[in-house]
Amino acid sequence: MPELQDDLRAEITLAGQWFDHLRSHSKGRLGVTRASYGEGEQMAHDLMRALGREFALEERIDAAGNLYLTLPGRDRTRPAIMTGSHLDSVPEGGNYDGAAGVVAGMALLARWRRAGRQPVQDITVMGVRAEELSWFPAPYIGSRAAFGLLEPEALDRCRRPDTGRTLAEHMAEAGFAPERIRAREPQLVPERIRCFLELHIEQGPVLVQKGFPVGIVTGIRGNLRYRDCHVLGRYGHAGAEPRESRRDAVLAGVEFVYRLEELWSEYELAGKDLVATVGRFHTDVDVHTMTKIPGEVWFTMDIRSEDNAVLLEVDRRLRGIAAEIGARRGVAIDPGAFTNARPGPIDPALRARLQTLAAQVDIPAMPMSSGAGHDSAVFGNMGVPTAMIFVRNDHGSHNPDEAMEIGDFAQGLKLLVAAVEDLDGASAA
Amino acid sequence: MPELQDDLRAEITLAGQWFDHLRSHSKGRLGVTRASYGEGEQMAHDLMRALGREFALEERIDAAGNLYLTLPGRDRTRPAIMTGSHLDSVPEGGNYDGAAGVVAGMALLARWRRAGRQPVQDITVMGVRAEELSWFPAPYIGSRAAFGLLEPEALDRCRRPDTGRTLAEHMAEAGFAPERIRAREPQLVPERIRCFLELHIEQGPVLVQKGFPVGIVTGIRGNLRYRDCHVLGRYGHAGAEPRESRRDAVLAGVEFVYRLEELWSEYELAGKDLVATVGRFHTDVDVHTMTKIPGEVWFTMDIRSEDNAVLLEVDRRLRGIAAEIGARRGVAIDPGAFTNARPGPIDPALRARLQTLAAQVDIPAMPMSSGAGHDSAVFGNMGVPTAMIFVRNDHGSHNPDEAMEIGDFAQGLKLLVAAVEDLDGASAA
Repeated sequence: MPELQDDLRAEITLAGQWFDHLRSHSKGRLGVTRASYGEGEQMAHDLMRALGREFALEERIDAAGNLYLTLPGRDRTRPAIMTGSHLDSVPEGGNYDGAAGVVAGMALLARWRRAGRQPVQDITVMGVRAEELSWFPAPYIGSRAAFGLLEPEALDRCRRPDTGRTLAEHMAEAGFAPERIRAREPQLVPERIRCFLELHIEQGPVLVQKGFPVGIVTGIRGNLRYRDCHVLGRYGHAGAEPRESRRDAVLAGVEFVYRLEELWSEYELAGKDLVATVGRFHTDVDVHTMTKIPGEVWFTMDIRSEDNAVLLEVDRRLRGIAAEIGARRGVAIDPGAFTNARPGPIDPALRARLQTLAAQVDIPAMPMSSGAGHDSAVFGNMGVPTAMIFVRNDHGSHNPDEAMEIGDFAQGLKLLVAAVEDLDGASAA
Repeated sequence: MPELQDDLRAEITLAGQWFDHLRSHSKGRLGVTRASYGEGEQMAHDLMRALGREFALEERIDAAGNLYLTLPGRDRTRPAIMTGSHLDSVPEGGNYDGAAGVVAGMALLARWRRAGRQPVQDITVMGVRAEELSWFPAPYIGSRAAFGLLEPEALDRCRRPDTGRTLAEHMAEAGFAPERIRAREPQLVPERIRCFLELHIEQGPVLVQKGFPVGIVTGIRGNLRYRDCHVLGRYGHAGAEPRESRRDAVLAGVEFVYRLEELWSEYELAGKDLVATVGRFHTDVDVHTMTKIPGEVWFTMDIRSEDNAVLLEVDRRLRGIAAEIGARRGVAIDPGAFTNARPGPIDPALRARLQTLAAQVDIPAMPMSSGAGHDSAVFGNMGVPTAMIFVRNDHGSHNPDEAMEIGDFAQGLKLLVAAVEDLDGASAA
C-alpha cells in the first residue's frame, strides 16, 4: 500500500502557487495565451526549469525543445516512469489544459523530495512542446518529434497564424535543432520508458454531469481532420438564375454536411464509436451577399473514433457522397487533404491498477473514453504502457471559462502519487 | 405604325459614348462602382443633366435626388409617358445594370429632338436613386421615396457600409431634403403618369440560353429578405462533448437550410413560383476553429415569388421549422427581421402591345418573368400601367463580367422608341 499520497497539503499549496504564476504571466484579453514555441509556452518551461533546480532534478532539453526533469533512481539502467503533459495553450484559452499534468508531475517529485526518498528507477516529468493545433496544423508536434515521428514536411508547411513563420523557423529561433527533427533523430527510446502516466483536465462535461472528481481513461479517440474542405460552384443572381442552371455552393455544402450527420447516426445505431464536428463553415466574407447565389464555401471536418477502421471507412464513404452531390448539382466538393491521428491504446493492466488504487485511497473515479486526443496517444502507439487520469473541469476547455477546482486537482494528484509509488514498490519487490 | 425606330444609328452611337463616359468615370479595381448617394451615382446624374441641357429638356430634381428630364408635350395637362431606371451600381459591378434604362431614355428623347417632333403629352426620363441594396438595406429607396412610400425609420436605420453614415445623412450631404421624405411628401403623383416603361438588362441567363436579344416581362417577382438569420447554440470541445449535450449551431443551420430547399421543391412540384437563395452562411470567423463545436451561425435568405401569398405562407412555415429544429437540438434559430417587397404587377395590355410591336418591327422578343426586382414594381404597385423590356446580357449582373452587346441594346431601344411613338400616336388619335 502506497503512503506518499496521504500527506499532499504542502504540494497542493505549491501547485496553487505555480498555477497562479502561469496564469499571471500569460494572461491576455480574455484568457491565457501560451503559443507553441512562443513567449507564453517558454515562460511555462522556464518556471518548470527553475523548479527543477530548486528540487535538484536532472534537466534535459531535447532537439524539439521538450523538457525532461528527472528524479534519479537507484538503478539508472532501469526504464523510467514518465509523467507530464504539454505547456502550450490555445489562444485566449484556460490555464489548466496541459499545464495541470506538468504541475502534477512537479508536485509528485516535490513530494518524493520532501519525503527524502529515492525511487528504484528514474521518475521523469516531461513538459511537451506544441500540442495545441491552433498554432501549427499538425497533431502532437512535441511528442511525435520526441519519437522521430514528425513528418519533415510539417516543419516547413506549418506556419503560425500570428507570425506567418514556419515551425522550423520558430524551433530554430527558440534555440532548438529542427534539422535533427527533420532527420527523424529519436529523442526518446520506447524501451527506456517503463510507462507514461498523463494527468489532464477533462475537456468535456461528463465528470461534471456524472458527479466524479476523477476519470480513468479507457481509450483515446483517433481522428480524421480536414481543414480545407471546399465547394466550388458559381456565383449568380439570386432572382434571375433558373434553378436548373444554378451551381449553389451553400446548398451543396449543406447537403454534404447533412449527409455526414446521417452517417454519424447510422454508425451510432450500429453501436460504433463516432463523433463528427464541422467547426467552420463559411461563404466568402469579402464577396458573399444576400442577393447573390453563393459560388464558394469552405468548411472543416473533425471526425473521431476509438476505431481507426471506422475512420478510414468514413473517409471513403464521404468521398463517394461528395462526388455524387457534386455531379448532381454541378459543383466540385473537395474534402481536401486530411490528417489521420490513430486512436491511442491505453494499457489495460495499468488502467485496471489505477482503478484499484483509486478505490483503495477513496477517490471516486469513473472509467471513461477520451474524446479528445492527447500526447498519451503517441506514447501508447509507440508501445509504451500508457494510462491517463482525467480531472473534473466545468465549461469545457479551449476557452477562458475552463474551471477546474483545486480540490479535484488534489484528488487527481493523489491518484498519480499513489500510482507512481505503487509502480516503484513493484520494482523494489 | 411608328417610324422613329427605323433610324436610330445616330442615337446608338451617342449611347455608346455615354456608356463609355459612365464606365471610364466610375471604374474601380475590377468593375464599376457607383454608390447610392455617392460619387459614382452623382457622376451619372451629372452626365444626364448635361445631356438634358444639350437637348433642351426640362429638369427637375426631387427631394430624394431623383432626376426627371422632360420633353414637354403639346398638352401639358395630360399624364406623362415615363421611362428610365436607376443610376447606382453594386460595388465593383457592371456598367449596364440600371444605366442602360436611363441611357435608352435619353437616346429616345434625342431621337424625338432630331426628328424635330413634339409629343402630345410629356415624355419624361427618370434617373432613379439608390436601387441597389448593397449600399443601404432597404428596397427601391429612390422610387419608393418618390411616391412617399419609404418608411421614415429607414432613413436612420440604413447605414452605408463604406461610410457608416445613415441614409438621411447621405441624402442631406448630397443636397437633398430627407426631412421631406421623412414626412412622406409625395414627389410623384400616380394620376399624372400615363405609364412607366423600364428597359433593363436581363440579370439571368435565360435570353442567352434561349437565343433572344430582347425579353418582354410578364411579372416581377416579389421577395422576402432576411439579412440577419442567426443560430445560437453553444461552443464546445469537438471530441469531448457527448452527442446528446451538444448544441451545434452548424448542424442546426444546415438542417434548416436543407428543409428550406425541400420546401422549394415542394412548391415547385405544386407548380408555384418560388426561388430561394442563402447567399451568406458563416460561422464566426474570429472564433470558429476545426476542433470546436460551433456555437453560432449567421446566414441570409432571399426568397422570391410572383405570388405574395406564397411568400407569406413560406415565411410562416419557415418559422415553424425553425422552432421545431431549435427545440429538438437545444439551439435558438431566429430568422430575424425581414422585408417583403411585393411582386410587381405588369399591365397586361401594355405588355401585349409591346409583344405586337416587337413582331411588327422584327425584333425577336421572348415573354419572361423577371426574377429580379426592379423600380417598375413600385410603379406597378402604385397603379401606374407598367411594362419592362429586358436586353440580353451574358454572365449575369452585379459583377464586372456583365456583358451586354450594343447590338442587343439597339434592339431593346428600338422597341422602346416604337412603343413610345405608338402610345403618343394613340393619344393624338
